[in-house]
Amino acid sequence: MRAVDVIRAKRDGHPLEPGRIRWLVDAYVNGEVGDDQMAAFAMAVFFRGLAAPELTELVTSMIASGDVIDLAQVPGRKVDKHSTGGVGDKVSICLAPLVASCGVSVPMISGRGLGHTGGTLDKLAAIPGFRTDIDGERFRGLVADHGLALAGQTERLVPADRKLYALRDVTATVESIPLIAASIMSKKLAEGIDGLVLDVKVGSGAFMKTRADAEVLARTMIDIGTSMAKTVRAVLTNMDRPLGRAIGNANETWEAIEVLKGAGPSDVVALTVELGAEMLVVGEVASDLDEGRAMMRRAIADGRGLDRLRALVEAQGGDVRALDRRDAMPVAAHETVIEAPMKGLVTGFDTEAIGRAAMLLGGGRARSTDMIDHAVGIELLVRPGDAVERGRPLAKVDYNDAGRLESSVSTFLRGVRIGPGPVAPAPLVLGRLP
Amino acid sequence: MRAVDVIRAKRDGHPLEPGRIRWLVDAYVNGEVGDDQMAAFAMAVFFRGLAAPELTELVTSMIASGDVIDLAQVPGRKVDKHSTGGVGDKVSICLAPLVASCGVSVPMISGRGLGHTGGTLDKLAAIPGFRTDIDGERFRGLVADHGLALAGQTERLVPADRKLYALRDVTATVESIPLIAASIMSKKLAEGIDGLVLDVKVGSGAFMKTRADAEVLARTMIDIGTSMAKTVRAVLTNMDRPLGRAIGNANETWEAIEVLKGAGPSDVVALTVELGAEMLVVGEVASDLDEGRAMMRRAIADGRGLDRLRALVEAQGGDVRALDRRDAMPVAAHETVIEAPMKGLVTGFDTEAIGRAAMLLGGGRARSTDMIDHAVGIELLVRPGDAVERGRPLAKVDYNDAGRLESSVSTFLRGVRIGPGPVAPAPLVLGRLP
Repeated sequence: MRAVDVIRAKRDGHPLEPGRIRWLVDAYVNGEVGDDQMAAFAMAVFFRGLAAPELTELVTSMIASGDVIDLAQVPGRKVDKHSTGGVGDKVSICLAPLVASCGVSVPMISGRGLGHTGGTLDKLAAIPGFRTDIDGERFRGLVADHGLALAGQTERLVPADRKLYALRDVTATVESIPLIAASIMSKKLAEGIDGLVLDVKVGSGAFMKTRADAEVLARTMIDIGTSMAKTVRAVLTNMDRPLGRAIGNANETWEAIEVLKGAGPSDVVALTVELGAEMLVVGEVASDLDEGRAMMRRAIADGRGLDRLRALVEAQGGDVRALDRRDAMPVAAHETVIEAPMKGLVTGFDTEAIGRAAMLLGGGRARSTDMIDHAVGIELLVRPGDAVERGRPLAKVDYNDAGRLESSVSTFLRGVRIGPGPVAPAPLVLGRLP
Repeated sequence: MRAVDVIRAKRDGHPLEPGRIRWLVDAYVNGEVGDDQMAAFAMAVFFRGLAAPELTELVTSMIASGDVIDLAQVPGRKVDKHSTGGVGDKVSICLAPLVASCGVSVPMISGRGLGHTGGTLDKLAAIPGFRTDIDGERFRGLVADHGLALAGQTERLVPADRKLYALRDVTATVESIPLIAASIMSKKLAEGIDGLVLDVKVGSGAFMKTRADAEVLARTMIDIGTSMAKTVRAVLTNMDRPLGRAIGNANETWEAIEVLKGAGPSDVVALTVELGAEMLVVGEVASDLDEGRAMMRRAIADGRGLDRLRALVEAQGGDVRALDRRDAMPVAAHETVIEAPMKGLVTGFDTEAIGRAAMLLGGGRARSTDMIDHAVGIELLVRPGDAVERGRPLAKVDYNDAGRLESSVSTFLRGVRIGPGPVAPAPLVLGRLP
């Protein structure tokens, strides 16, 4: 077989014969096919897409490129959640222990943030000592003992995705729905899960700017899961505004802990309850969403979720005082407020700009090699619909490096829309699939 | 500037700002941009094309990547011919000395063959001692002294094209009309010419299988030339059958020499006269094509073209006896004939198969690293419209390696169509542009 023939067939829109994509992925991972040929193939896929059998073959080949976590010995259903990435999305940190406390195991492998979106792994790193670099054996042990584990991707899990993603990042082939879906699903399905709930973000702070694109991505991921006999459900949620008040790392982790204490912002609580209800249904411990929602609310009210997280933080080497005191996590040296430049109604956000403002403080990465300052962040003090006077504080900024402040503040102000109104209502949940 | 942004803009069909492509080509040649990014860009160009200013910038950047031959000190107009590649196309070898003998200088840099199409450089290499690896200074001297030079591409001429072509070859991005046009025109315009005549082949033995594609390619190349103030004319010619009788290397060179002696096959003579007439018009020594044709016919009849080639062969170190005796060039050890498998009319050829049959004998390259046997070849003994009995010889085959014969003969037979007829007339010249 020659890679050039596989590329040409895809380029010309011909169906690829079974085995072709498996051969290509294997040859790419072992170095027989180079980055040049894989880049051309990825660009051809950008234009031509992948048929369902091709996509399934891509995902199974990517999974087969590395180790797969085997959770068959862990009793009960194993269900994970994946978010396509947003601003202020700290839900995993409160969701996973709540769902685990309701009897569904959550083997959660998370990623690092890049650009305007944060990553759960970076937020968890704000807890002193908390180790997320754990191997498959230890991961399995945590899921067995605690009903959950919060880990980062190891070198041995889906190496094909790591190699392919790095290539796509420099060749403008990231924005391909089948390649996005394959990247997400290969990593999730290698976790040994029975089912998956997808939080597909839509809006100005999301990767998918339109509901139509988000639906295609959701449908594509559901089809991949179905072809591999997994239960996959998707919730399309609003990312036209940041989620919650905190945007950063330590402050987001603290906000997630507040949810477990029954004190979190209403939108974070609501999304946690919705996604949890879906996971409990997929995990077959709730018969419908309403029952799932009620179970989630009880697990918040009686502190079971908080207890579960406390046990896990201890098991993963973290300082459990972080669950009780904000200052047990990194705290920035300085704070300031950003004031409204005019009177009016807050009509909405360019959420990507808000995320970028937090990144510019040092709270995120412009490049994958950038270091993160876990202490810095932004706390939103207004929501869409709030009336503001000129000079009224819009946000509190925690910062360490004054040199980073100006560009962060100006970016933030570009991201806040103040005008005469009206303010359109924006429901949190925009739709569900299938 | 970042390559990924240039790739993305092209991928999304946005016009590239002036300077973007120049930056990309420079960065690719000096190694700052890798094969992975250039492959993705080439595939994006395959799907999105290049706007006229982008294409001009690509060609000028490619030319600027290396040396340019300066023929300003050589008096008179300098005009070259380029063929897009066919089977049995030995026209350059008789055309260049004829045009030079009529007073238009021909600085001709030719290529090697690959696949089913031969290359003028390989055919010339059948003349013992003939040197085509000559530097710019020597090339200029030959054009000044003889009105022509027949050379191969040096390392220093358009290195961007060499690097890009090798990449396109393995990434299924060869078949892009703007990239084909840029590759051809960058090499030709680096020769220091004033004008160019394009022989754009159409048909089963050509790169462009349809007239529509050939016209787009011709138009694209004309536009590139025009944007650089060069006179470019294109002739679309029939490649639904091999040109002439000889397909190989020494035998094709000999057939071209026979044209100069007034004895060549009628189609080779006719195409030589047509292309020469165009070159004489572009070279401003003939006022119209009819005058050009008459000049070409006289240069054949009075032996001026043959004299000119003889002087050039001597100047380039070749054995001039090759112009008088076929056996002064390599002769194969064995010959055989291919017989008609049935009675009928020869209705046509799959010309690519005929070219491949000669390649399989050792007369061409399957891969660019293959060695060529200059002695072997095929002589066609029938033309479309000939009635044949079963057993009648269709072709004579000169071969050295009996182990190569069977696949060559069977490939040849797949390339000959024998049936009840009728035989459609196929004019040699299908059209002219502009």
